[in-house]
Amino acid sequence: MELKLISYDKNNLKSIDLGDNVIIDRDRLTMIAGPCSVESREQILRTAEYLKSLDIKIMRGGAFKPRSSPYSFQGLGFEGLKYLREAGDKYNIKIVSEIIDPRDVEKAYDYVDIFQIGSRNMQNYSLIREIGKVDKPVLLKRGMNATISEWLMSAEYIALEGNDDIILCERGIRTFENYTRNTLDLAGVAVAKELSRLPVIVDPSHGTGRRELIEPMSRAAITLADGLMIEMHENPDKAISDGFQSLNFTQMKELVTRIRKLHDLLAK
Amino acid sequence: MELKLISYDKNNLKSIDLGDNVIIDRDRLTMIAGPCSVESREQILRTAEYLKSLDIKIMRGGAFKPRSSPYSFQGLGFEGLKYLREAGDKYNIKIVSEIIDPRDVEKAYDYVDIFQIGSRNMQNYSLIREIGKVDKPVLLKRGMNATISEWLMSAEYIALEGNDDIILCERGIRTFENYTRNTLDLAGVAVAKELSRLPVIVDPSHGTGRRELIEPMSRAAITLADGLMIEMHENPDKAISDGFQSLNFTQMKELVTRIRKLHDLLAK
Amino acid sequence: MELKLISYDKNNLKSIDLGDNVIIDRDRLTMIAGPCSVESREQILRTAEYLKSLDIKIMRGGAFKPRSSPYSFQGLGFEGLKYLREAGDKYNIKIVSEIIDPRDVEKAYDYVDIFQIGSRNMQNYSLIREIGKVDKPVLLKRGMNATISEWLMSAEYIALEGNDDIILCERGIRTFENYTRNTLDLAGVAVAKELSRLPVIVDPSHGTGRRELIEPMSRAAITLADGLMIEMHENPDKAISDGFQSLNFTQMKELVTRIRKLHDLLAK
Amino acid sequence: MELKLISYDKNNLKSIDLGDNVIIDRDRLTMIAGPCSVESREQILRTAEYLKSLDIKIMRGGAFKPRSSPYSFQGLGFEGLKYLREAGDKYNIKIVSEIIDPRDVEKAYDYVDIFQIGSRNMQNYSLIREIGKVDKPVLLKRGMNATISEWLMSAEYIALEGNDDIILCERGIRTFENYTRNTLDLAGVAVAKELSRLPVIVDPSHGTGRRELIEPMSRAAITLADGLMIEMHENPDKAISDGFQSLNFTQMKELVTRIRKLHDLLAK
Repeated sequence: MELKLISYDKNNLKSIDLGDNVIIDRDRLTMIAGPCSVESREQILRTAEYLKSLDIKIMRGGAFKPRSSPYSFQGLGFEGLKYLREAGDKYNIKIVSEIIDPRDVEKAYDYVDIFQIGSRNMQNYSLIREIGKVDKPVLLKRGMNATISEWLMSAEYIALEGNDDIILCERGIRTFENYTRNTLDLAGVAVAKELSRLPVIVDPSHGTGRRELIEPMSRAAITLADGLMIEMHENPDKAISDGFQSLNFTQMKELVTRIRKLHDLLAK
Repeated sequence: MELKLISYDKNNLKSIDLGDNVIIDRDRLTMIAGPCSVESREQILRTAEYLKSLDIKIMRGGAFKPRSSPYSFQGLGFEGLKYLREAGDKYNIKIVSEIIDPRDVEKAYDYVDIFQIGSRNMQNYSLIREIGKVDKPVLLKRGMNATISEWLMSAEYIALEGNDDIILCERGIRTFENYTRNTLDLAGVAVAKELSRLPVIVDPSHGTGRRELIEPMSRAAITLADGLMIEMHENPDKAISDGFQSLNFTQMKELVTRIRKLHDLLAK
Repeated sequence: MELKLISYDKNNLKSIDLGDNVIIDRDRLTMIAGPCSVESREQILRTAEYLKSLDIKIMRGGAFKPRSSPYSFQGLGFEGLKYLREAGDKYNIKIVSEIIDPRDVEKAYDYVDIFQIGSRNMQNYSLIREIGKVDKPVLLKRGMNATISEWLMSAEYIALEGNDDIILCERGIRTFENYTRNTLDLAGVAVAKELSRLPVIVDPSHGTGRRELIEPMSRAAITLADGLMIEMHENPDKAISDGFQSLNFTQMKELVTRIRKLHDLLAK
Repeated sequence: MELKLISYDKNNLKSIDLGDNVIIDRDRLTMIAGPCSVESREQILRTAEYLKSLDIKIMRGGAFKPRSSPYSFQGLGFEGLKYLREAGDKYNIKIVSEIIDPRDVEKAYDYVDIFQIGSRNMQNYSLIREIGKVDKPVLLKRGMNATISEWLMSAEYIALEGNDDIILCERGIRTFENYTRNTLDLAGVAVAKELSRLPVIVDPSHGTGRRELIEPMSRAAITLADGLMIEMHENPDKAISDGFQSLNFTQMKELVTRIRKLHDLLAK
């Protein structure tokens, strides 16, 4: 593995400053939450307001949804991005959202604070190169079939274009086990931190595909990861996508309280 | 799995006519060969001339190479496509080459006879939708981590945009086995033919990653597949990429002779 | 991989003579068929009679069934072996059956002509060592999670005890693909033949887990394998185990006819 | 999944009392350590003495080693078990060791305090049934290719024979990732605790195959598991087996100190 730009260097660990005192690095716990898909303006405004009340400073929400089937909901597109931006501005919360087309990078620039590269696009080199040219941070999800080495190589691709404000996100790999949707590879997090100087967070929602596993895996994850990205929905049973792996607002509140307490303990 | 446009229909099996009596369908054996990467104009001209002498009517050659490492050879790009086109025109051989950026589809249109979607891009929806809008055939490789269902769904994405001239290509999936580079899933070929009306071919070069396995797997493959796509190089030991899984010219000649003989036997 | 006893040696390819002109080696096609489980004496007698009418000379039948759940049918045990022996004697057909306990090897000796080691027991070293001490052939199935190297190593274990009358049997490996029960690794067959001097056969019933895939995968398999092992049942829909991957008698007849014809063609 | 005997029942969570105040259950942290293989009497005595000094109450050590290659060290057998027993008696430390043959269960009974069933034998039903008949606890490792459901089913097999003093041990599953030896499935631990009433521990040594990952994965593991099993060797670089994933004595001391501190924090 030939890493030059993102290889581990304890004197140069990456710290990503989003402004408004929102910093992502290895010294603090980053919490990101929000719905799988942006479904409506009102949903996003209510979600942002609630997250703000929990002091969660980054909201996720999918506007462009890469779905296996062309007949599944594909997201609201730029309309969705607008809702996210409006909510972000109103509640002073940062926005992370996935882009799947290199031609959308420029158009989406004003709407997001962090560009997300999803699992299926981790090796979409035309897309990640384009993202490497902008001056906003990138959240790079690990491909569901990607080795740790390939994941880091994709980060290196981005850095080579000039942008090394990269947050790595482990979200589970595809294995024979089918009780869980994916197999969350926490050792992969440890390795990514050992080999690179980037912050590494974990998505236990996709990583397990089961609501009841989000809390235990969040606890395990924050012993080594720098943050969490969690799917949350006002009414998970009515979510257009991924409701089975989303927390409702109350569950999110309980989770964030416990996780912060644990993080404080671990910090000692 | 919700297939509407490419689902099996024995009265409407797909036949793709490339002109010059080059037809790809389930009634004949399609042979595609050529180097992993386009390396030079001369290489491509010599390769095309040789393939022509073997009566192989479609040449592959990678101009845009999606590589795990940004430090690996990334291909000659449009320069490479030009060499392919020149050779195709000179020797009257059809050209298939991979495109990895939706913005290149229009520019590449005049250079290729068949657009290839590579394994890493099978779920690059912005790319495959763009390919779905053109009136040239598409060779859709199975993702190395994609289920058969996801593979067919990606074909459905393309067809929904208007282009159902799709050739499916099985190229091995990623498993724990590491003696071979991938595990060639021939049952996946049988299933793809059962569920769709598309022609399905096999790439035993990527599917095994070992030169000595190309012939046995080609033999097994053509008992159920409609064709083969094989990597060939003038001097495999000096190939810039994938030489270890490429045949030299003489080996290619021997292979094609034996495979055609076997195919004739099977046709009886 | 350190193979001393079973490593490839073209001058010493293994030929296993079971008597009555039943020989298993790389020069002919070995056909084995029969039910997943022995269910009754009458079933086995009827099956043997039918196989005999098809000139199939080896019958399979499970008396000891290693099942994931303790609440699933575990087989008739020695009672089942007696039925197999009786049918084998009456119809002059050879018997292969699985043993799962090293303490049963001696007791089972008189009942079987070939000992089968099942997929779950490929690395059950106390069992395979015991099997290595007897003077009857062994059919060694590949572990569903075993690399080719581990599979050959298990054969080497058996040979080291003195018994190198070993038939390797590929039966599919466990992968992420779930349309098929397992992923049949035909490249693994090619590799096993290249690295060892043993005959290698294929089980397309377990290898696919779908009745409709048995024929296409049998055709593909015999281009490189030395035989097939196929599950067959009088009334698959009423089989106690694995009916969904079993042929009925008529389907078996059609299959064996077509496969023999193809094998004759390939032999030319 | 049909679990009757080990299914979750909060009023009947399993507590296994080994005497001498050594209890394994969900209310405390169980630490097990020791060498991969028993190599000599002196090694085992020194190891036991050291573990005692760390207040670790259970020592592991392999006397029967299931190795992929018959040419690898197979363990000292009963000689090894004697050394373990002697050390256990001298230092008042409990012994856990793997048995791989059902015929050895009775003979090994006096030497071990806990029988271990290794990963390769999780579905060796003749062995696990025999273990189910004894009145000593069993440590049941998850098969490297076993689903969570199959793992629990194997525990149910043991319980059905009368012995439900079962400790489950997650040790990593086989996936495409190869930077780590296995992929440690901590979600599998959470699921096993949710579905069964058994204590569940984690083996980060086999689970990662890399010494430097033992501590981070131990930390993550104890947020949800009930204990750890760790390989330790006087001189890992000279260990006959698995030295690359073993801690030396000093590293073990540091690890246990930190892990206990973390466990105390988590208990709050």
